[in-house]
Amino acid sequence: MAVLTASKTSPETAALVADALIRADAEGIASHGVSRLPIYADQAKAGKVDGFAIPELTETGTAALRVDAKCGFAYPAIAAGLDRARGMVADAGIVGVAIGNSSHAGVLGHPVEDLAGDGLAAMAFVNTPAAISPWGGNRPLYGTNPIAFACPRKNQSPLVIDLSLSKVARGKIKLAADHGEPIPDDWATDQDGTPTTDAAAAMQGGSLLPMGGTKGAALALMVEIMSATMTGSHYGFEASSFFDADGGPSRTGQFFFIFDPVALGGDAVLDRFEVLMTAITDQPDVRLPGKRRLENRIKAEADGVDIPDALLQDLSKRATNS
Amino acid sequence: MAVLTASKTSPETAALVADALIRADAEGIASHGVSRLPIYADQAKAGKVDGFAIPELTETGTAALRVDAKCGFAYPAIAAGLDRARGMVADAGIVGVAIGNSSHAGVLGHPVEDLAGDGLAAMAFVNTPAAISPWGGNRPLYGTNPIAFACPRKNQSPLVIDLSLSKVARGKIKLAADHGEPIPDDWATDQDGTPTTDAAAAMQGGSLLPMGGTKGAALALMVEIMSATMTGSHYGFEASSFFDADGGPSRTGQFFFIFDPVALGGDAVLDRFEVLMTAITDQPDVRLPGKRRLENRIKAEADGVDIPDALLQDLSKRATNS
Repeated sequence: MAVLTASKTSPETAALVADALIRADAEGIASHGVSRLPIYADQAKAGKVDGFAIPELTETGTAALRVDAKCGFAYPAIAAGLDRARGMVADAGIVGVAIGNSSHAGVLGHPVEDLAGDGLAAMAFVNTPAAISPWGGNRPLYGTNPIAFACPRKNQSPLVIDLSLSKVARGKIKLAADHGEPIPDDWATDQDGTPTTDAAAAMQGGSLLPMGGTKGAALALMVEIMSATMTGSHYGFEASSFFDADGGPSRTGQFFFIFDPVALGGDAVLDRFEVLMTAITDQPDVRLPGKRRLENRIKAEADGVDIPDALLQDLSKRATNS
Repeated sequence: MAVLTASKTSPETAALVADALIRADAEGIASHGVSRLPIYADQAKAGKVDGFAIPELTETGTAALRVDAKCGFAYPAIAAGLDRARGMVADAGIVGVAIGNSSHAGVLGHPVEDLAGDGLAAMAFVNTPAAISPWGGNRPLYGTNPIAFACPRKNQSPLVIDLSLSKVARGKIKLAADHGEPIPDDWATDQDGTPTTDAAAAMQGGSLLPMGGTKGAALALMVEIMSATMTGSHYGFEASSFFDADGGPSRTGQFFFIFDPVALGGDAVLDRFEVLMTAITDQPDVRLPGKRRLENRIKAEADGVDIPDALLQDLSKRATNS
């Protein structure tokens, strides 16, 4: 937290950011964990992210909420939007929250999981800087564009689905390139848009391929529309990188559908949900989505979280020096 | 139409069904076209589908609408729900419509396209009788579970995305089995849940594989929750077949999110949408989703639609004999 506040971020926002990053590490998602903190701090210092931004909320309908993140961190904008939506959903039954002019949203499963903890179901869409080309194309337009979904359960942790629409994360391709190893032919294209097994070629101006081929590309387009068009945000191909302090605000977007399962599915909805959950877990060798994250979280609560030494030293230096 | 009314369906419903089937044929989607009419007529005659059902609408929130299709055809339930939702969305900005106790919904792209024709964006989810197993499982629980999305465009036909979450339709596997040909190993499993290249084994108690592997299976689960749990409907593994007149009503469900793009994305939303559309179509060899359907429709308007002779004879006989 001190790392961020020393780098020009309000204490309230720094606390939200710190919580999000530590929660990701606790679930074994190091790519969205404390490893992001040095970049976040650099971005706040450079003004690429405004650490003091106060999100601006506008209700444009009884069930429609627009949030202008004002080029601040995504976490306070999401928190403010979902807090207001929680209040609106009692009368509306369902609320749409469009968050624009935002930035890296971290683990999208977290905010929907929190809503499900309050008895609400939610579906969310996020765009990121360009990674995936339209099907058959050679210029990345869409981000990796995660979809997240959560639904409350009776006497159990909520079901959480959280997946990006690229076949694999770019990090896996970079790792193969670093080791001079080939990649499967459905992971990425070269810069001409041709699927490639050459990891180095994929890293040099190539695109990530979507999961599910042409259907996955269509879903990536849908998510781009929901999270950018419908939030007044930058498209993936207009957005600056999440990984450096250059190029001005990313201005990406996040979209949430939030709804009361009882208002739509009726009083028996949670009992009926358990019928489906049981039909899944009764099958041998089948796991519910999100199970590993939950297990990691329980382990982290007992054992703590490992942060690489170099990262810890970097953070300590930043916290004292700035 | 006479085929249906002779088989116990109200003229109003028969007209809606006929429109939907002909529209599918005009777009080249014969699997959801007039080829369904003999089955529909048998189902109405047997009472598996109630051709006289009057959908019951309940507003459970200012933005939440429940529709009980009363085990009738899906088309009048969808029409009634979306008509009411059109009226609600002006104040709400966004509306959720949960349609339960329904049946085969036809081409899901059609109702969302119609909404987009009225300046509204929409996302829809539907479940079908079980076809896809949970990832790693050996018992199909989820349907092929289409997702459809439409967004209005400036001076253009709406963008329509409409895709099922199975890698391929079962019809393609049946065709391979009929010809004794192998199938790719990511199309289906055998009855033990093991991916197979043996089309005949896939047809004997196997599952369709989802597009996108484990991520696609998670999306199929999400669609099952939206369209069955959230509508009080049967799960895929509880639903009777869409292809015969046996086993009582299917009681599957449909779910729609309907929203005003301007309420969420602001006044510039349609201009901004064109920026994305142009970035896609500017790339060589790239087509927007739904382009082929539009082209087929234009061709059908000029040339009419081909119906196989045997089907026509069957329909003529039914219309005069019943």
